[in-house]
Amino acid sequence: MIEILQNPDVSEWKVLQKRPSLDYSTLRSSVQGIMKNVKKEGDRALFQFALQFDKSSLTSLAVSPQEIKNATSAISPELDKAIHIAAENIRKFHSAQQEQSRFIETMPGVQCWRKSVAIDRVGLYIPGGSAPLFSTVLMLAIPAQIAGCKEIILCTPPDANGNVHPAILHAASVAGVSRIFKTGGAQAIAAMAYGTESIPKVDKIFGPGNQYVTCAKMLAQQEGTAIDMPAGPSEVLVIADRTSNPSFVAADLLSQAEHGSDSQVILLCTDKEWMMRCQEELLKQLNQLPRKELATASLSNSRFICFNTLQQCMAFSNSYAPEHLIIACEHAEELANEVRNAGSVFIGAYTPESAGDYASGTNHTLPTSGNAKAYSGVSLDSFIKKITFQKITRDGLQQLAMAIETMAQAEGLTAHKNAVSIRLNKYIA
Amino acid sequence: MIEILQNPDVSEWKVLQKRPSLDYSTLRSSVQGIMKNVKKEGDRALFQFALQFDKSSLTSLAVSPQEIKNATSAISPELDKAIHIAAENIRKFHSAQQEQSRFIETMPGVQCWRKSVAIDRVGLYIPGGSAPLFSTVLMLAIPAQIAGCKEIILCTPPDANGNVHPAILHAASVAGVSRIFKTGGAQAIAAMAYGTESIPKVDKIFGPGNQYVTCAKMLAQQEGTAIDMPAGPSEVLVIADRTSNPSFVAADLLSQAEHGSDSQVILLCTDKEWMMRCQEELLKQLNQLPRKELATASLSNSRFICFNTLQQCMAFSNSYAPEHLIIACEHAEELANEVRNAGSVFIGAYTPESAGDYASGTNHTLPTSGNAKAYSGVSLDSFIKKITFQKITRDGLQQLAMAIETMAQAEGLTAHKNAVSIRLNKYIA
Repeated sequence: MIEILQNPDVSEWKVLQKRPSLDYSTLRSSVQGIMKNVKKEGDRALFQFALQFDKSSLTSLAVSPQEIKNATSAISPELDKAIHIAAENIRKFHSAQQEQSRFIETMPGVQCWRKSVAIDRVGLYIPGGSAPLFSTVLMLAIPAQIAGCKEIILCTPPDANGNVHPAILHAASVAGVSRIFKTGGAQAIAAMAYGTESIPKVDKIFGPGNQYVTCAKMLAQQEGTAIDMPAGPSEVLVIADRTSNPSFVAADLLSQAEHGSDSQVILLCTDKEWMMRCQEELLKQLNQLPRKELATASLSNSRFICFNTLQQCMAFSNSYAPEHLIIACEHAEELANEVRNAGSVFIGAYTPESAGDYASGTNHTLPTSGNAKAYSGVSLDSFIKKITFQKITRDGLQQLAMAIETMAQAEGLTAHKNAVSIRLNKYIA
Repeated sequence: MIEILQNPDVSEWKVLQKRPSLDYSTLRSSVQGIMKNVKKEGDRALFQFALQFDKSSLTSLAVSPQEIKNATSAISPELDKAIHIAAENIRKFHSAQQEQSRFIETMPGVQCWRKSVAIDRVGLYIPGGSAPLFSTVLMLAIPAQIAGCKEIILCTPPDANGNVHPAILHAASVAGVSRIFKTGGAQAIAAMAYGTESIPKVDKIFGPGNQYVTCAKMLAQQEGTAIDMPAGPSEVLVIADRTSNPSFVAADLLSQAEHGSDSQVILLCTDKEWMMRCQEELLKQLNQLPRKELATASLSNSRFICFNTLQQCMAFSNSYAPEHLIIACEHAEELANEVRNAGSVFIGAYTPESAGDYASGTNHTLPTSGNAKAYSGVSLDSFIKKITFQKITRDGLQQLAMAIETMAQAEGLTAHKNAVSIRLNKYIA
């Protein structure tokens, strides 16, 4: 059984909220080695790494149109339908994030506005392995497509036969990915950061990955390629009370725990007896899971905490800043108004995290490790720049002149002042 | 005279667009040393560094209310008025960036929305030195205040007498800064990243600085504190033609050049003769500048390029992705529609960069070094998170169930599937 903590003092929260710390210092040099190699050798290095890491002898890095066609026919009609439903909802939610320019006249004759312009070329990384994360393809490529990115590149490792999982290829084709390349790990990130003969250099890199990928993204960011956000293990925090359904909550906790042994699961509740019932339910469901081992490992790091009030639960949650926050208690929507730090919030008994993970329309690429205190999840904004524009008339500049000239002078920047004075015939060189 | 290049081939652009590359490898260990010291010793280290780097023997790190009061009385009425005009315009432009939540029903019973929530605590860094950058105080603190940040911390180095420039203190007070601390350089960034006895740990760090500050911000970001954006030397690119006013353009180029010897100045034009006239004007104005030396050094790295068409100029500009883009040619507004990569764009003869630097209302904290390809300048968005929320009814979940269950199964995540099935009585443990 998992220990249930009772009303821990605020001074103890920091320890209870500790995440597994990621130390890249040992990886760093080997990742740097891989990246340097790709920078220098280009495609040659990628072929070599595919052989070494993916046991795959490739003749081409690019996925061919025929391979995509084959993938689409290999998908069951049911999965195809599911992907289209999810894609449609993701499209609806992210399309609503489009913004028209608003022209603001800050003073008469001084017109300022912002315009959303798509990032030209984005690169998406999708990990390989046993579970093909084709849902992430939808979550990244659909907003990129809505934003109007000119080119959407996707890199994913091949299997030992040189193939990519058909669900990934099909999702990529549904979501408007421009080109797909068979390369994984740090080498894929390097390829998108520097460009190779086959793979174009991109302006921003998105997507999840193991610690090599995460480290490579960090290094790429330092060298000037933007990335979506810092990565860390997935997390859920559930706030419940005695009115919550223990089976539902147990299922939600397990759906987080099955991600991996470093997943974080936190249950906060105002009723200890209910928490015991939820634990029983959890163990019953756990026993039937194919990924039971991973989930068990993850649960060993989980926290079950009983607070006196829902307000204390919310204070703890805001201090933890969970990636996913499920509010399963009574009056959940009211409590949701008090959320200050979270990636994505799921309100009420019939809103499992799985809905947002796959198909409700919200994005599942979210800030982990407490980054929700300062970062938002991926959205349309992640694929655009908002460029400011201004247009000033001569009269408008006259209105502004005193402020600009005085401030520039006080900052000791005479040429800044002159740029105004000369336009208003107050200065002639 | 500056060499005027004629129609360089696209293949040559990369070299022409090269920025001074910043190499932190030599700084890194000394910055890490400073940061570790602050992490371990807290205030004690900050007092020590103030003595060492600022020659300032402090008794308190916090600026007192009396010091702010004194600063306000030390400001000339003219400068006070200028600061208030600028603040008002910045407030207008950034207030218009506030967004109401829009509730999107992606399917019947599936309601999703985003809510803007302020980052709780932000830290602003303002460099010291000869020119007090009080305009940057306004540019960072005003959007933070509009966003609703609970606490706005400002760090800036003291002078040898332990004082902060009155213009910085006054601007901070006008813009709603909560608390000001006398500490500069990498140690100030460390203080805000880790927290000390006097200075609270912040969620995100903003502001310009020298290479030590920039390096410290990068390290803080790696360790989990968000930062505004990667920093680099300031830049302007001007697009002109024979209808442009050579004195105005020369003044704009100089207002960039006077920033520092590593500032980047690029002039693109479709008329070589006009460019010669602009150069003459430039030299005349240069001779009268107090910061003539810095500007001269910066101009030695500048590029004057003559293209056949304005379209080529714009293509070059989009490829360079300037921090500031001034479009001074005929039909400037039309050409502005083709901007894809820039931090802030200034349209027409009476829109000098100085206007946006100080008082028109747009933000002057902008992406440099080509980062405008993927980053936006500072805006209200920089001080908020957009948290997604969703609320699903039982019927809504029924609508989504097939998509979620099928996709979760295909990704091998059974517990994700169960979280839906159990709610619809299709699964009992």
